[in-house]
Amino acid sequence: MALSEDVGNGDVSRFAVPQDMVADYEIEVQAEGVICGLGIALDLLSPLENAEENEYAEYKCLDGDRVVQGTTVFSGRMNARELLQNERTALNFLMHLSGVATFTRKFVDAVRGTKAKILDTRKTIPGLRSAQKYAVRCGGGFNHRIGLFDGILIKDNHIRVAGGVSEAIRAVKENGPHTLKIEVECVTVAQVDRALSAGADIIMLDNMPIAEMRDAVGICDGQATLEASGGISLQTVRSVAETGVDYISVGAITHSAPALPMHLEFR
Amino acid sequence: MALSEDVGNGDVSRFAVPQDMVADYEIEVQAEGVICGLGIALDLLSPLENAEENEYAEYKCLDGDRVVQGTTVFSGRMNARELLQNERTALNFLMHLSGVATFTRKFVDAVRGTKAKILDTRKTIPGLRSAQKYAVRCGGGFNHRIGLFDGILIKDNHIRVAGGVSEAIRAVKENGPHTLKIEVECVTVAQVDRALSAGADIIMLDNMPIAEMRDAVGICDGQATLEASGGISLQTVRSVAETGVDYISVGAITHSAPALPMHLEFR
Amino acid sequence: MALSEDVGNGDVSRFAVPQDMVADYEIEVQAEGVICGLGIALDLLSPLENAEENEYAEYKCLDGDRVVQGTTVFSGRMNARELLQNERTALNFLMHLSGVATFTRKFVDAVRGTKAKILDTRKTIPGLRSAQKYAVRCGGGFNHRIGLFDGILIKDNHIRVAGGVSEAIRAVKENGPHTLKIEVECVTVAQVDRALSAGADIIMLDNMPIAEMRDAVGICDGQATLEASGGISLQTVRSVAETGVDYISVGAITHSAPALPMHLEFR
Amino acid sequence: MALSEDVGNGDVSRFAVPQDMVADYEIEVQAEGVICGLGIALDLLSPLENAEENEYAEYKCLDGDRVVQGTTVFSGRMNARELLQNERTALNFLMHLSGVATFTRKFVDAVRGTKAKILDTRKTIPGLRSAQKYAVRCGGGFNHRIGLFDGILIKDNHIRVAGGVSEAIRAVKENGPHTLKIEVECVTVAQVDRALSAGADIIMLDNMPIAEMRDAVGICDGQATLEASGGISLQTVRSVAETGVDYISVGAITHSAPALPMHLEFR
Amino acid sequence: MALSEDVGNGDVSRFAVPQDMVADYEIEVQAEGVICGLGIALDLLSPLENAEENEYAEYKCLDGDRVVQGTTVFSGRMNARELLQNERTALNFLMHLSGVATFTRKFVDAVRGTKAKILDTRKTIPGLRSAQKYAVRCGGGFNHRIGLFDGILIKDNHIRVAGGVSEAIRAVKENGPHTLKIEVECVTVAQVDRALSAGADIIMLDNMPIAEMRDAVGICDGQATLEASGGISLQTVRSVAETGVDYISVGAITHSAPALPMHLEFR
Amino acid sequence: MALSEDVGNGDVSRFAVPQDMVADYEIEVQAEGVICGLGIALDLLSPLENAEENEYAEYKCLDGDRVVQGTTVFSGRMNARELLQNERTALNFLMHLSGVATFTRKFVDAVRGTKAKILDTRKTIPGLRSAQKYAVRCGGGFNHRIGLFDGILIKDNHIRVAGGVSEAIRAVKENGPHTLKIEVECVTVAQVDRALSAGADIIMLDNMPIAEMRDAVGICDGQATLEASGGISLQTVRSVAETGVDYISVGAITHSAPALPMHLEFR
Repeated sequence: MALSEDVGNGDVSRFAVPQDMVADYEIEVQAEGVICGLGIALDLLSPLENAEENEYAEYKCLDGDRVVQGTTVFSGRMNARELLQNERTALNFLMHLSGVATFTRKFVDAVRGTKAKILDTRKTIPGLRSAQKYAVRCGGGFNHRIGLFDGILIKDNHIRVAGGVSEAIRAVKENGPHTLKIEVECVTVAQVDRALSAGADIIMLDNMPIAEMRDAVGICDGQATLEASGGISLQTVRSVAETGVDYISVGAITHSAPALPMHLEFR
Repeated sequence: MALSEDVGNGDVSRFAVPQDMVADYEIEVQAEGVICGLGIALDLLSPLENAEENEYAEYKCLDGDRVVQGTTVFSGRMNARELLQNERTALNFLMHLSGVATFTRKFVDAVRGTKAKILDTRKTIPGLRSAQKYAVRCGGGFNHRIGLFDGILIKDNHIRVAGGVSEAIRAVKENGPHTLKIEVECVTVAQVDRALSAGADIIMLDNMPIAEMRDAVGICDGQATLEASGGISLQTVRSVAETGVDYISVGAITHSAPALPMHLEFR
Repeated sequence: MALSEDVGNGDVSRFAVPQDMVADYEIEVQAEGVICGLGIALDLLSPLENAEENEYAEYKCLDGDRVVQGTTVFSGRMNARELLQNERTALNFLMHLSGVATFTRKFVDAVRGTKAKILDTRKTIPGLRSAQKYAVRCGGGFNHRIGLFDGILIKDNHIRVAGGVSEAIRAVKENGPHTLKIEVECVTVAQVDRALSAGADIIMLDNMPIAEMRDAVGICDGQATLEASGGISLQTVRSVAETGVDYISVGAITHSAPALPMHLEFR
Repeated sequence: MALSEDVGNGDVSRFAVPQDMVADYEIEVQAEGVICGLGIALDLLSPLENAEENEYAEYKCLDGDRVVQGTTVFSGRMNARELLQNERTALNFLMHLSGVATFTRKFVDAVRGTKAKILDTRKTIPGLRSAQKYAVRCGGGFNHRIGLFDGILIKDNHIRVAGGVSEAIRAVKENGPHTLKIEVECVTVAQVDRALSAGADIIMLDNMPIAEMRDAVGICDGQATLEASGGISLQTVRSVAETGVDYISVGAITHSAPALPMHLEFR
Repeated sequence: MALSEDVGNGDVSRFAVPQDMVADYEIEVQAEGVICGLGIALDLLSPLENAEENEYAEYKCLDGDRVVQGTTVFSGRMNARELLQNERTALNFLMHLSGVATFTRKFVDAVRGTKAKILDTRKTIPGLRSAQKYAVRCGGGFNHRIGLFDGILIKDNHIRVAGGVSEAIRAVKENGPHTLKIEVECVTVAQVDRALSAGADIIMLDNMPIAEMRDAVGICDGQATLEASGGISLQTVRSVAETGVDYISVGAITHSAPALPMHLEFR
Repeated sequence: MALSEDVGNGDVSRFAVPQDMVADYEIEVQAEGVICGLGIALDLLSPLENAEENEYAEYKCLDGDRVVQGTTVFSGRMNARELLQNERTALNFLMHLSGVATFTRKFVDAVRGTKAKILDTRKTIPGLRSAQKYAVRCGGGFNHRIGLFDGILIKDNHIRVAGGVSEAIRAVKENGPHTLKIEVECVTVAQVDRALSAGADIIMLDNMPIAEMRDAVGICDGQATLEASGGISLQTVRSVAETGVDYISVGAITHSAPALPMHLEFR
């Protein structure tokens, strides 16, 4: 789909290029980061069925590898018209997914030595949920639920309409799937206490001050898994991790990751 | 599609919410910016056919409006389960597209008073080309070609394989569609000269130092439209505009725009 | 899709019916059972946009209702040609889904008074998973995971290749989603013991003799949820339920449910 | 489609299995019957493009073969994670289609020695019409029309609104496709008589007592093809066949066939 | 689909037209003919949901009507930008389908007074089979089978590989659907004779001289339906009809019908 | 799609042909013309994956070649049942596209020696725009814009609502894409003058008498490209070309091209 939105009825600049010309090329990163999306690039740049025999496309590193400026991550030989047609779509995927992996890796590095794991959220770019979640893993992060269907999360709005934390948990236990754990979003330590009593499996500490998070970790004492969430940045993530929470979820790694710059050059 | 990747086989947290409950809600922006995507939000949050009579959904401002932190941009009344199901997808579109519009607007504001117009590029997030190009217009920018099919752009790789600027232009004039202008990417003033002689309609000054851009503007003297491109940032865009070019294209406004934060609250 | 496989390029028998004739009709069940699928029937039999004013379609009962032979479950007035075109597809859905609900209800009734709940499995008719799972709920049953993506179930083949129950659980805990409970299939009481030690949340007792199930219930003592499975029939389900297990899963309610007979008559 | 409803965003139990493990397996039937669906199983279990060299998948018998309990019908060697992902969908098809073939074969065997052929109907499981009709042929049955588009059948409701058997036949002859035979549903011998006079090519004896069927066979005397229909069971099918009808159509072989049990075991 | 191939990413000429302008328009035919396709035009030109209240679209005649040069066949009031966007697609359908209806009507008129009916063939424009077959009926013709699935036609190549007319008919009778008539293509009177003996229901006289056709009609004597086919033009069709055949099939009415010219004018 | 509208649920005449029979065949043209569509034919007639080893399909000439009656353009060896199933769809494409190429070539030949190039229009058969535009190129013609999205054409209706030629051009220059040339439809020489002053890049002379066209060519004098359009036939095209216009667009080459007859024969 991404290819068709770019190519449409065909590349009108192709006439500048002789029809049967074959070109050798390389894709080079222009900044330090973590690479991700080589498989999609391979799909887009692989020789077609009727290609000449010596055409090829290959990775020069693997998804998840750290790369420095100037690293060649991909090379190949392809019909020049087809290459120029698919180039931008391949680069758009590579640059965006590597951007997500790179940004994730910065958070992961920032909490090194603590037990906290970095999680993504459902705040993803529309249409790219699966790809971005893969990029998060390539950056050393972990995935929270894929969507609304594979994890229960009782949030502030749920609690308000259900009439309280306990009521919300009870309703979900009775009618929800017995194969899923129940996570509850809490904004105060008192709520954490109620959620534990009601049998929550996971508790999300939402936009809580560091000191309260530390209290919550103490109260919880291993009875439930703890996840910190809410506006956590590269500046604040380490102090959050040091409170002792199990997970830290960060929306920015998927909704605001800057692209990792790359270009494709004919040799 | 974006909705189905989030909802899948259904929201398993819905059981916390009474089935027939109706909720009043507002969407509020949490930072200053330019809003974009209200139409998609309306599609996702409009009452279903079998909704209660007093359900509704409405804009509180228009795409392209500047908003400050705390502005309510959307409000409505909807079945609470359906609202919680569609909320995240609506917010993901709003936050991303408003991010693009907001980032574009910063470039547009930076060149105010010059004749330069800000253009987008084909460096878009896969699958969102049309939506992002709309967001660029909401931010006060202009659109370059949509894809490979509706604009001719002869780039460095084309010139290399065609054997020179003139050869590339001639080949395209002969075989390409007569309804499209021909744009040529030049990296030196000498190339600009050759492109003009060969009859280029638009010349892209690619990664050129400011001084050379100024020379190019002088040489061109209105014979062709001039577009500056290549790694232009908020720091450098004004000095580029002051060289007298007609357009400045910026990949970052689509590939690296941070999301504009928003949330949806039950009243 | 179901409609198009029946209608294809149009109903060639329609010529026997005057083009603008409108018919009153009723759908009647021809055996005792539980009704399911009225919503799909309504979709298929609702008047089209350009229908005459007095056309209508309506339920005479609700999904999940018990019905006796001769009950009218649906009635309407519709253009006769359109009715005869959509009739069979509507009946095929109604008869199949009501068959599933009816068969499920028999198992549910058989365990009345025990704490056991009847669960479905992934042994569904290809293409109808969601619809059948809905029919199971209409029959008073509960749904196991929808598919491979929303529930972890470690089966005999997993255990064999992982090198043991504990190894399999550990691998899944480390790499699997933290929002899902872990279910393990056990064939002996010894395995149940190992699964409990390794921290299984749910234990499936697979094809276990009644006596061993009872032992497993004793050993488990509330530390994990217990599910009985494997060739359980209407004859055996009550004795299984009386062992004290929490859930009993039955493949036959989705893969071998006979249709509930119905017909549509013009009045 | 059937695969995607089961796998969704991926098998979360896969982590129990080493990523590159290859497994030898067999599919074994657990009851006597007729096998059907091996082609679909082959599609689902064939080695992927990037599979190891010694992976394979193969039939051990052919669609339509009679098998006894314990027969191995399929074997292969495949990446264990992929195998566990596709296993259930393959088995669901095999078990259902073999169930249809097995049930059909029982009817075919019951009329052996008479000239009657067993036909299916349009009472099929939604979405599986083509596959079920193939299974019927594997069980020794024949196919009635695929849908409304490839066979004319004037039923009781048609006759009522057309104003009689002759009127209905005349209307269809005038306006319907000249390439299709005309079949008419009759519930009395008198109707059979009128249908013959009006030029029916095929006459369906609908829910007729055995004695009347015999009369209809006598009256018809080869002028038209005769098909018996309506609630015919394994108990009654032979006596129907012995009346001398050409075809007997049975809805139950597609709408109520119990699955033929099978399982897949790692060797 | 036809609309999207024309509009793609949007009408770039729309900027010449004020955004909220509403236009009154008429579609006028520019030559004599039979109109067809008004329903598709209505779909394409109907006011959108958010249209102004006084927008409308309506037929001025009906599909199948004969029209003279200058007849207004459609009129409406619509947002001018939307109108200019959908105009060409609507006209392309109307002009093509009316062309088919008009060309068909010429053949139908040419055989007036004989018993021969004009049939179409499977020689249709790819993608438009159903629409063209509808246009044929609007022109007074009749439809042969829709495709390979709803009519049996044994052609020269079948006969060659089957080993003769009788062998081919026997094979199809044994294994083909009992609800379809059998048509056989014959090039000589001797073949007609063999086909009759073998029980053909319909016989196609393929590229036969007029005299032989007359012989075939005599030999057949009502035992089978006769269809003439093969390169029949407006010049020859009447003499073919006068031989006494029942049907004449003409490929040209669908594969070579010239468009009926029309234009859309703003009032 | 074209194949499925023909084949539907399968070829019911296939039973006349032994299942494993392989046939040698040739496609022969039955009239003089230009061939087009061999690639689509190759797709439809290529041996399937599980074909016998000696099956093949190959061109005997190339798209764009002139052929005489009796030329074999394609030959192959294929399973006879599959061949008879795909034959008609392949021939329908070949006959239609070759018809377009042949008709185009007649116009191209008629203007030989002048500088005029033959262009197509948007008056294409719905669904076949791209294929027909390719056929036009095979016939020696050139393509006008593909659709509304890749070329600006200001027509009579635009001018009327914009309030004049200059106003329309100005509006489009300000808001339209800067990469596209602007074409304006003129019906008088005075309009041509105004369009030139307003900066039109291309001027369409719409339904203009020959003498006025000559005047327009004189006035224009190379300042803009000139295109003649409107009801131009094989009889009139040469005199139009001799006025000195650059392009002549002809709707009939796509909307009214008669098919080039061909047939497929078993050898």
